[in-house]
Amino acid sequence: MTHLADENCAALSGPEHKLTEAAINVLRVQVPEWSQDAQGRLHRRYGFDNFVDALAFTNTLGEIAEAQGHHPDLELGWGYVVVNLSTHDVGGLSRNDFIVAARIDHLAA
Amino acid sequence: MTHLADENCAALSGPEHKLTEAAINVLRVQVPEWSQDAQGRLHRRYGFDNFVDALAFTNTLGEIAEAQGHHPDLELGWGYVVVNLSTHDVGGLSRNDFIVAARIDHLAA
Repeated sequence: MTHLADENCAALSGPEHKLTEAAINVLRVQVPEWSQDAQGRLHRRYGFDNFVDALAFTNTLGEIAEAQGHHPDLELGWGYVVVNLSTHDVGGLSRNDFIVAARIDHLAA
Repeated sequence: MTHLADENCAALSGPEHKLTEAAINVLRVQVPEWSQDAQGRLHRRYGFDNFVDALAFTNTLGEIAEAQGHHPDLELGWGYVVVNLSTHDVGGLSRNDFIVAARIDHLAA
């Protein structure tokens, strides 16, 4: 199995790129700390000791998002960053969401 | 009337520093673009043309928060930053929230 963190996001558009429940379950093995929120988005919270560290993480994460052309919705404050991923153009989760999730995990590790 | 954006946050703790509805209405005149969300937090959404500009705004806003020792909860993604302010130590809104709101407005102007 190739590692998701070594892959790059592709231009995906259209419902045919929306992952099935079965495909999601296979990919989640590689990003076990992530869950799906009520809206089906791929979701993880990272904790930090202060605001500055949370903001620094956000900036490095932002470089990944910009390089991959795939941008999460973030929540950020004193001691935390929450990352929410989905792919608007497919109407759900795509492989791109898992690639970015795996790359962010590498960053946090 | 002194301008809120010229003030600095003070160390406020305890319910006696929680602003009354009347006091909130007076201060909101200086930050008319802000509203209160369902949880009573002071709330404003700023729009941007891309992710990088939203992240740059977040960083400058973060410098204000760090300098004032008063940190908002932020939502950030492609084209937007949402700022939510409240003061945990008073159990609601304090003058500090309005000071940081006014300073962020100056930044955005």
